[in-house]
Amino acid sequence: MGLNIVEKILQNHLATDAKTDAGEIALNIDYTLTQDSTGTLAYLQFESLNIPKVKTKLSVSFVDHNTLQAGFENADDHKYLQTVAEKYGINFSRPGNGICHQVFLERFAVPGMTLIGSDSHTPTAGGMGMIAIGAGGLNIAVAMAGKPYFLKQPKVCKVELVGELAPWATAKDIILELLKRLSVKGGVNTIFEYTGSGVKNLSVPERATITNMGAELGATTSIFPSDEVTKEFLKAQGREDVWTELIADSDAAYDEEVVIDLSALEPLVAKPHSPDNVVPVKELEGTVINQVFIGSCTNSSYMDLMKVAAILKGKNVHPNVSLAIAPGSKQVFTMLAENGALADIINSGARILESACGPCIGMGQAPQSAGISLRTNNRNFKGRSGTADAGIYLVSPEVAAVSAINGVVTDPRTFGEPIIVEMPEKFLTNDNMIIKPREDSKEVEVVRGPNIKALKKYEDMEEQISAKVVLKVEDNITTDDIMPSNASLLPFRSNIPHLANFCFAGVDPDFSERAKQAENGFIIAGDNYGQGSSREHAALVPRFLGIRAVIAKSFARIHYDNLINMGILPLNFANEADYDKLDLNAEVQIKDIKSNLEQAKDKWILTTNEGTEIELKSDFSARQRDVLLAGGLLNYTKKNQ
Amino acid sequence: MGLNIVEKILQNHLATDAKTDAGEIALNIDYTLTQDSTGTLAYLQFESLNIPKVKTKLSVSFVDHNTLQAGFENADDHKYLQTVAEKYGINFSRPGNGICHQVFLERFAVPGMTLIGSDSHTPTAGGMGMIAIGAGGLNIAVAMAGKPYFLKQPKVCKVELVGELAPWATAKDIILELLKRLSVKGGVNTIFEYTGSGVKNLSVPERATITNMGAELGATTSIFPSDEVTKEFLKAQGREDVWTELIADSDAAYDEEVVIDLSALEPLVAKPHSPDNVVPVKELEGTVINQVFIGSCTNSSYMDLMKVAAILKGKNVHPNVSLAIAPGSKQVFTMLAENGALADIINSGARILESACGPCIGMGQAPQSAGISLRTNNRNFKGRSGTADAGIYLVSPEVAAVSAINGVVTDPRTFGEPIIVEMPEKFLTNDNMIIKPREDSKEVEVVRGPNIKALKKYEDMEEQISAKVVLKVEDNITTDDIMPSNASLLPFRSNIPHLANFCFAGVDPDFSERAKQAENGFIIAGDNYGQGSSREHAALVPRFLGIRAVIAKSFARIHYDNLINMGILPLNFANEADYDKLDLNAEVQIKDIKSNLEQAKDKWILTTNEGTEIELKSDFSARQRDVLLAGGLLNYTKKNQ
Repeated sequence: MGLNIVEKILQNHLATDAKTDAGEIALNIDYTLTQDSTGTLAYLQFESLNIPKVKTKLSVSFVDHNTLQAGFENADDHKYLQTVAEKYGINFSRPGNGICHQVFLERFAVPGMTLIGSDSHTPTAGGMGMIAIGAGGLNIAVAMAGKPYFLKQPKVCKVELVGELAPWATAKDIILELLKRLSVKGGVNTIFEYTGSGVKNLSVPERATITNMGAELGATTSIFPSDEVTKEFLKAQGREDVWTELIADSDAAYDEEVVIDLSALEPLVAKPHSPDNVVPVKELEGTVINQVFIGSCTNSSYMDLMKVAAILKGKNVHPNVSLAIAPGSKQVFTMLAENGALADIINSGARILESACGPCIGMGQAPQSAGISLRTNNRNFKGRSGTADAGIYLVSPEVAAVSAINGVVTDPRTFGEPIIVEMPEKFLTNDNMIIKPREDSKEVEVVRGPNIKALKKYEDMEEQISAKVVLKVEDNITTDDIMPSNASLLPFRSNIPHLANFCFAGVDPDFSERAKQAENGFIIAGDNYGQGSSREHAALVPRFLGIRAVIAKSFARIHYDNLINMGILPLNFANEADYDKLDLNAEVQIKDIKSNLEQAKDKWILTTNEGTEIELKSDFSARQRDVLLAGGLLNYTKKNQ
Repeated sequence: MGLNIVEKILQNHLATDAKTDAGEIALNIDYTLTQDSTGTLAYLQFESLNIPKVKTKLSVSFVDHNTLQAGFENADDHKYLQTVAEKYGINFSRPGNGICHQVFLERFAVPGMTLIGSDSHTPTAGGMGMIAIGAGGLNIAVAMAGKPYFLKQPKVCKVELVGELAPWATAKDIILELLKRLSVKGGVNTIFEYTGSGVKNLSVPERATITNMGAELGATTSIFPSDEVTKEFLKAQGREDVWTELIADSDAAYDEEVVIDLSALEPLVAKPHSPDNVVPVKELEGTVINQVFIGSCTNSSYMDLMKVAAILKGKNVHPNVSLAIAPGSKQVFTMLAENGALADIINSGARILESACGPCIGMGQAPQSAGISLRTNNRNFKGRSGTADAGIYLVSPEVAAVSAINGVVTDPRTFGEPIIVEMPEKFLTNDNMIIKPREDSKEVEVVRGPNIKALKKYEDMEEQISAKVVLKVEDNITTDDIMPSNASLLPFRSNIPHLANFCFAGVDPDFSERAKQAENGFIIAGDNYGQGSSREHAALVPRFLGIRAVIAKSFARIHYDNLINMGILPLNFANEADYDKLDLNAEVQIKDIKSNLEQAKDKWILTTNEGTEIELKSDFSARQRDVLLAGGLLNYTKKNQ
């Protein structure tokens, strides 16, 4: 039996000496990436491991999130990231150099390698034939220390692309079609492997659009073959030497299969407030819009923006539309400025933003109240734009540009002849905004501004924890509920004490103070606790506030891992009805914690001060039990160095 | 006796039927401009006057301050400004079109005309031979209603420029030299009229750099002649038809005179924290810098940025310097993108920001803690950058660019041959980001987002006011102390109830609540109350909080006017020692208020609840008394329509 691409790479990277059970696999990681909003903490964690240089083949630290810089905190973080990179052998991509995923694709991605990144859109590099997975910052720190990355053995779903895209249908429409079919939960624990005759007609940036937004399927990652198209792209980037072919064997097997006929696709749009709320653009034609944003790690490549420039050339942005455009990288930006396309874009009336994430993560360009905004982003969650009652519609750059001219949602097929943009034979490669690692970095002083707070150290797990129930919540609590993120809190990602004041702020404004008073706290929750973004801070900040266990009817997968990584016990009710027996402020205790973990016992007893006993259960892998015993992944990694 | 330029324009614009006394003159205003942070309120005030169309020759509403848009408030303000402009016959310059003063110079300024603008750098247009004065938003509203603008008869100071600038000395160095000589108080109640053989060698953008930063002298305004250079600039802008010659008569007289030998100037720098703290660049050579910003209404013209591009071409921004560049206007931005200069700028490693005020007003790019930032701005007040302990140094674009490459303050004369940039024969003129007024605008609906609060209406002045002393402050209270402005408060300039919570927040956090409780409040102050920025909100917000009188040892001039405009009585102690007799929370009253104003009496009695009588005094013009009687300028204007 032959192998698919995923199997080929995974087999090459299995950490065979790592002990695994309960369906986990351990992967050796070649490359890591971080961005600034998660990176600062990841490097603080890495520093605490006392390793002189990163042990990966290549690690890159990007700055693309906090680039507005309303206060000193951001520039301090940038300086910290630059100096810590210099000291520990990490490439540093300076603010202004672009969005991590776009720059990584252009300048770093190599077929056949493994990458983990502290950003959920790390799978973008799957467009280059990498296994590229989004993970928590602590996972990145541990990988940089040379330790394997553990994940549940994923299923592999074959996505067979047949035929060719019709005029004005795009790569964005392929992934929107898949989201429409499978929903945002359709990819859980799955890697999507693209194959079929349609693949050869998709450029690397188009493939990257698809793997990027594969994250919205809830997928582990997505991957394309490495073929002649990949080779041409790498050659144009002056990196053909790193190319290797990577295709599935003809008799490869897959766990699941999907077929998409590209010729049947038409321009699509994801309506508010979910990326899988997909309908044809023509269904919404004529809807009045207030704003258009073209950019983000999904659609800000040279090819994307050349098409946009061709559409806007000689036209005027509609008077009632604010069109903002952020090129994905310095490479893209410079090339557009050099060949006149940027002049066409500006002249049409577009607002040019710095090469960074910007509006996609709610950093700037919040729409007007109840505004309708067409964006080339990957996410349209309610409120993420910075305007609670705005409606965000996800579209291709072509739909965005044509609609910006008309002032209403427009099917681009009405615009005229399709725009053909050729892939350049040579990209402009000037890496002066990437500071390379150097050998003699022992004396480098890491600069820490006053907003960068030292990590709190936690002890090993105790045998018994007495605590107060400091919060009781219902079903479907999201990581956004736990640790809100917005333009005012994002600059404080390296300041846990400050963030702690806003933990659960929207759910219960008194939580933070109550938890601080209680010293040790438990949280009681319903079903699906911790759903949504992979935000590690949603575990880290509660731990800082003394949360020692979360007892829930059920957990969302990534948050469950994050709780364990931070040394918080995630336990389930043996009988869900017991949820009603535990009230806010109840004084309770759990005994035999160390013993249970050491002896791999899955049955736990929680006792209230009135003597009521409630049975709890667990389902940890051996590694997870060890991590919990150590008081979290950081302690665990230190002990196993 | 001949006339100077100032006299020629003022004589042409005297509102001869307006009653004036006490050294005031009344000017007919041809043009007005607003920017968004002051404009929203100005148009709310204008709307309350119930006039169908503005009565000026031309009014322009710009958006250049709140363009980061971290929340819905800014986009709502933009929409309000766009619709109110459409309804009332005002030109609307859309966000992204550039900084008001740069765009006004390019597309609107006309020699010999009068302009008032709700931005302190309105004098920029003096570079085109206009009398251009910064004023409060309410003054703009009243001018748009066709009423004259009152100001104290200014002195005219002749600035004779002789000789030619040496290589690498710039227009920026001319105004820095003047600031060094005269200080930031040196221009109070003065108009600076530039003349002499050196004028003809200065382009219009260079002249505008000088008149722009003349604001830092505390001047009423500054003006250059309109000559062949002006004509050429207007021709290149496709507006030669509006040119008229405007030069001083050979026997014109001046109140004061300064001579500057241009050939003796070298590159200068204003050190923290004042624009008049000027030394030669060479004195600071080698100082390590962290950030450079090139932009702002002082130095963001096409000529400025072409020089910057020529310096940066083929070079790399120093790894420890963040260089941010914001082109002054869409015209500048497009032309740089068209001719390849922008590609050179981006390729060197510069971060490109939207055409807007940006970092100059603390909207983004705050330096790192204790950072050293070289900027082409006009102001370097402590904290204005967004970082309280940063040091901002004001320099020419040439010094900024050369230093950004070297990572240290660098005298550009060490860089090599001077850069020569020719004025283009034709600027790229595409006004698609300016929405022109139209006739049939009766049905236009003005859109008001939830952050735009209706103005509170105030009654006529009473005969007697009983109040509590709700604040007692020392000498030199600034308008920044009274109404703080920063990146988090700036988006709320049209939301007085919200701003009111932060009034005097740094001086006394309880003030706002105390004033609200007291209903009627008086403020007791020392010398020079209300110094600093002309911020109208420093009078408007206290009035909203029930402040009816400020009793001070002395007042700063502009704030004194603003208090009267808002209907707050500014009174002086007859005996300064009485300052000690009034304590916080004292219950006091002033009688005979209407009678005193109506009868032009300058002696006032304040009585405490214990029966102590304190003598106060005033020095109002007849117009000021009428404004106070009406309860403020808005009421006064409505009554006199």
